[in-house]
Amino acid sequence: MWFTSDNAGPAAPEIMEAMMSANEIYSQSYGADPIMDRVRDKIRDIFEAPHAAVYLVATGTAANSLALASMVQPWQTIYCHRHAHIQEDECGAPEFYSGGAKLTLLDGADAKIDLASFEQSVAETGQVGVHNVQKGALSITTATENGAVYSVAEIEALCAVAKANNIPVHLDGARFANALVNLGCTPAEMTWKAGVEVVSFGGTKNGCIGVEAVVLFNPDRAWEFELRRKRGGHLISKHRYLSAQMDAYLTDDLWLNLAIKSNAAAAKLSAGILQLPGATLLHPTDANIVFAGWKRSGHQAVQNAGAHYYFWPFDQTLNGDPDEILTARMVCNWATTEADIDSFLGLISK
Amino acid sequence: MWFTSDNAGPAAPEIMEAMMSANEIYSQSYGADPIMDRVRDKIRDIFEAPHAAVYLVATGTAANSLALASMVQPWQTIYCHRHAHIQEDECGAPEFYSGGAKLTLLDGADAKIDLASFEQSVAETGQVGVHNVQKGALSITTATENGAVYSVAEIEALCAVAKANNIPVHLDGARFANALVNLGCTPAEMTWKAGVEVVSFGGTKNGCIGVEAVVLFNPDRAWEFELRRKRGGHLISKHRYLSAQMDAYLTDDLWLNLAIKSNAAAAKLSAGILQLPGATLLHPTDANIVFAGWKRSGHQAVQNAGAHYYFWPFDQTLNGDPDEILTARMVCNWATTEADIDSFLGLISK
Amino acid sequence: MWFTSDNAGPAAPEIMEAMMSANEIYSQSYGADPIMDRVRDKIRDIFEAPHAAVYLVATGTAANSLALASMVQPWQTIYCHRHAHIQEDECGAPEFYSGGAKLTLLDGADAKIDLASFEQSVAETGQVGVHNVQKGALSITTATENGAVYSVAEIEALCAVAKANNIPVHLDGARFANALVNLGCTPAEMTWKAGVEVVSFGGTKNGCIGVEAVVLFNPDRAWEFELRRKRGGHLISKHRYLSAQMDAYLTDDLWLNLAIKSNAAAAKLSAGILQLPGATLLHPTDANIVFAGWKRSGHQAVQNAGAHYYFWPFDQTLNGDPDEILTARMVCNWATTEADIDSFLGLISK
Amino acid sequence: MWFTSDNAGPAAPEIMEAMMSANEIYSQSYGADPIMDRVRDKIRDIFEAPHAAVYLVATGTAANSLALASMVQPWQTIYCHRHAHIQEDECGAPEFYSGGAKLTLLDGADAKIDLASFEQSVAETGQVGVHNVQKGALSITTATENGAVYSVAEIEALCAVAKANNIPVHLDGARFANALVNLGCTPAEMTWKAGVEVVSFGGTKNGCIGVEAVVLFNPDRAWEFELRRKRGGHLISKHRYLSAQMDAYLTDDLWLNLAIKSNAAAAKLSAGILQLPGATLLHPTDANIVFAGWKRSGHQAVQNAGAHYYFWPFDQTLNGDPDEILTARMVCNWATTEADIDSFLGLISK
Repeated sequence: MWFTSDNAGPAAPEIMEAMMSANEIYSQSYGADPIMDRVRDKIRDIFEAPHAAVYLVATGTAANSLALASMVQPWQTIYCHRHAHIQEDECGAPEFYSGGAKLTLLDGADAKIDLASFEQSVAETGQVGVHNVQKGALSITTATENGAVYSVAEIEALCAVAKANNIPVHLDGARFANALVNLGCTPAEMTWKAGVEVVSFGGTKNGCIGVEAVVLFNPDRAWEFELRRKRGGHLISKHRYLSAQMDAYLTDDLWLNLAIKSNAAAAKLSAGILQLPGATLLHPTDANIVFAGWKRSGHQAVQNAGAHYYFWPFDQTLNGDPDEILTARMVCNWATTEADIDSFLGLISK
Repeated sequence: MWFTSDNAGPAAPEIMEAMMSANEIYSQSYGADPIMDRVRDKIRDIFEAPHAAVYLVATGTAANSLALASMVQPWQTIYCHRHAHIQEDECGAPEFYSGGAKLTLLDGADAKIDLASFEQSVAETGQVGVHNVQKGALSITTATENGAVYSVAEIEALCAVAKANNIPVHLDGARFANALVNLGCTPAEMTWKAGVEVVSFGGTKNGCIGVEAVVLFNPDRAWEFELRRKRGGHLISKHRYLSAQMDAYLTDDLWLNLAIKSNAAAAKLSAGILQLPGATLLHPTDANIVFAGWKRSGHQAVQNAGAHYYFWPFDQTLNGDPDEILTARMVCNWATTEADIDSFLGLISK
Repeated sequence: MWFTSDNAGPAAPEIMEAMMSANEIYSQSYGADPIMDRVRDKIRDIFEAPHAAVYLVATGTAANSLALASMVQPWQTIYCHRHAHIQEDECGAPEFYSGGAKLTLLDGADAKIDLASFEQSVAETGQVGVHNVQKGALSITTATENGAVYSVAEIEALCAVAKANNIPVHLDGARFANALVNLGCTPAEMTWKAGVEVVSFGGTKNGCIGVEAVVLFNPDRAWEFELRRKRGGHLISKHRYLSAQMDAYLTDDLWLNLAIKSNAAAAKLSAGILQLPGATLLHPTDANIVFAGWKRSGHQAVQNAGAHYYFWPFDQTLNGDPDEILTARMVCNWATTEADIDSFLGLISK
Repeated sequence: MWFTSDNAGPAAPEIMEAMMSANEIYSQSYGADPIMDRVRDKIRDIFEAPHAAVYLVATGTAANSLALASMVQPWQTIYCHRHAHIQEDECGAPEFYSGGAKLTLLDGADAKIDLASFEQSVAETGQVGVHNVQKGALSITTATENGAVYSVAEIEALCAVAKANNIPVHLDGARFANALVNLGCTPAEMTWKAGVEVVSFGGTKNGCIGVEAVVLFNPDRAWEFELRRKRGGHLISKHRYLSAQMDAYLTDDLWLNLAIKSNAAAAKLSAGILQLPGATLLHPTDANIVFAGWKRSGHQAVQNAGAHYYFWPFDQTLNGDPDEILTARMVCNWATTEADIDSFLGLISK
């Protein structure tokens, strides 16, 4: 019963098999492998974007930071939610890669950026000319850090304001597949058709070992991106092992099927908790993360049985009034089983 | 017959098996996996350095740049050979990670730093106080880009000058094992006992998928290193797959046995070429790289048969006088077979 | 009637005379001039800090950025008020000089940092270890951008929280003299005795041509500061002209007397406006800046007569209901005369 | 008898008078002063470049670094002479402002870049694509650090190679006037007509207090330059005092007349020394710097009489064989008198 993160679980068998197959060939290194040619084609096909530039890196922080660095100047600001991963969980990587750009923090429920908050911040940016940091890029995340998913209309509305202000839009899709299967739209509708220019397309959290694609719908800065990736130490020499993961991930809808599983597990967990007396939900369970509260006695029972997850906020403790509601964050992954959920729910409802 | 690089070949079977085993567990992410605890112990044991800080990253450029960034200030210089990987093949990654430190280029045969060249450069650094870039770190590479290996005495001599000037020493050991088996000394003798403070300990080129260890013999800046690694996007979430590679690599002398194989292949290749009329050796074949020249007719024969390697320098061509000597760089890896070498030699000697 | 900024006015005659005198000598450059020796002694004397390191630069942005860069690491955050000059008016200079540190924005009335806001932000910093930007420095400004002055007790309270968290404290004293004469305390009481470690001690806004001192009460990082200053292009070759300004500024209490004049002018202006029907004060007039509102008809009258100042916020316009209250920011300088104020008040009260 | 540097001497009286006049006005700050409008027009007129963007800063290091940062990307290299000021005397400022660009060092007599050295370095840059630092900018200096002046033909030849490789050219003109009066050509001929795109146009060393212009013949990146200047803390608030210096400097050929004086003083000094037995000249005296050698006894005599200059190289000493030739660097400035030279020559020839 591991719910600490979707990166605590195993990689899917298809991914591991692809690694073994990739090991049987000699290959050019640094991305010139033939598997990468297939990956590029598949991503262009999935996104209906035949001219997109496609690159692979091993971490989400690298994907986000390199993407944003290619979109902003050092004297510009990146608009993002105040609970965005790039603000809270990357130790300043966007600042490092961009050469010191600022992050302007926006508000909104469930870690989704409120349109009015974005509009106001944009209006306030650069009012005194050269004295001010200038307008840079907008970065949105879906599914969000709170497990919520933007509707296509919400993405379109943010992108419209961005476009009117010449602000390019980045989408942090560490949980891209989880968001997509929730919406039931096409990848193109969730991205470039809505106005997104660059996507961090995650594989790691959804059943890969460690691979993220960066998709640049406008390939004008592709060469710059390649140089930034190399300079950042993120051009993998034996690149075929990244390619192989992404290739398998995109074959026979594996990426979608894995996300369907983890979303379903989270939905079941969320629904089950809500049956308990006094239970609460902090955020909607749109994807594979559950933010919920139940009695301390339930926490005691399940943690004593070896369940792993985080209190949310962190500073709650197991000792105290057994009837007090404690809140937690639980992340399901593709390998989370129905039996895991049933067992968990059984323990907390005693 | 792939001799373009040691990263063109497959990973060793033991490495692949370790990846499969690592996939069977749930685990804390970001380096808190139990396999990493074993790796840390093994490296400390191998280096006879019980207090060393040990970290894993996925690329050699990351290992070198993060190591050097933790050793110098932005207003200092890094002394290195003018053909060092950090100067020629990392697209300025050391400058990026260090916040703009300078690289001072030294001379020496076979890409080994000449002691007098280092002494002179150090003497010339910082003569006009605050106006000058200041003394930073020394970075040496063994085996070098030219396939040569420093003797322990040569490392000691460079480190002595460095120490006398308060200059910490980094060793780029992308081919650490290849150098070590050439010398027949202990890892400690080749590093901290000689005066080296930080080592990039390579696994990727020697049979892993993609893993390098950074070993800080002085752990004072370990926390800084961890922050730099995270900020650079090089803290891998599913870290257990890095740990598993390094764990297998260090088990039952696998790392040494793989290097013995690739060094032996290179020695055989080098010796075979030298039998040919007019053949030349550009650099000694101390490790797994051969820099050699033979007749154009031999190059034509072997390349027509599908051999992959690079002319060195690049601007030589297959067309021309068949008796002219063309020079090439060939890298052997652990999987290079005796049959590969025999076949290659047979073709070029026709 | 120029009230756009205290940098719109002339330098004091004593400053100009010192420039002429400095021109009569040959001198070593780059700060090795004998006038600088006097300046250093005077600042140490004024601050009762015999071991302080003292450096001069030409701009407040340089003073603040270099000071902060020497106090934080790139992966740390600088706590400041959300309306601090370093956040709003330096085009990201602190991010640039620090190598990409973050600014964490705090709240509080009159651009003074609220203690609780600081405490909460500190408590939230670095909760998830290496994933988070770490605690860096606190930067306070007095007089603030809103013309308010911290009491010594308020500074002490902020510094106490900072000290308990190993956070060094920087004071942006672009209007140091204006704050000091408001409080009537000693420079030491307003700074190191309260817990401040580094001060940007402004001269430019208070009657100099362009000179700011950076005072490091702890000289441990003095050499680093010198290297950062040079590397930033802020080590002035003909430094004697900076020294001369600061020397005259600190002679015979000139710096205090100039601040007394500008504060008095602002007080008179503020009091006069408040006599008008419907007039408002947005912030207390502790120093030399007045934030006040009066009827549009008064703005029309005074602006038609050639007065220069800014509406605050900017987006108000002269056209409209003559009785509507429009708010403005007006900065007095040492050369603002009683006649200027009387004339201004006369015009707006018609 | 001060010959340590041209920045050891006084500012010209016309410059000081302009400062006094500038002090009589109220003015917009940050470069919006009316004097700057005159300066811009004068520089455009002098350079026959009606569309050039013109900015002022207080130091040569700022001028060079900001200029170069606007011409290169962080992953590119700046070609310069190995004894260029940007390499040897700016503590890494170009690396800092550019975000970590590399400096590729070229050879050539008298600190003038040899054409073949430049051609070879360009040919060697970027041969392995993304792995290498890329071609950036060329920076030439005239008069050079060795007091030599490029002919127009030499500048044209370097610029032609640069242009053929899409490499923009920067001219470090800290001693622009000294070079120009030596050549007797027009400013346009020495710069944009020859292929130079950006000029650091020095005032400080040639009789100003502290002001340098940056002239961008192609104004496309003017706004970027302004943002970089502000972000670097080099936008002076009371900018009128920079403007006033440059305005006076460019009035009635003051800048040319001052350079004529200092060049003439150096020529007289150089010629006088060469009369002595055993005297040597290390570099041609094209501008206002003399590199010459004469007997130790002469050095003893003149230094005992209070002359200030540097041995070149530094490590020579006054004690020793009186007949040994010691070499020195002596810089004349506009205020160096014939009597100074006569006195100096008299002392060393005893």
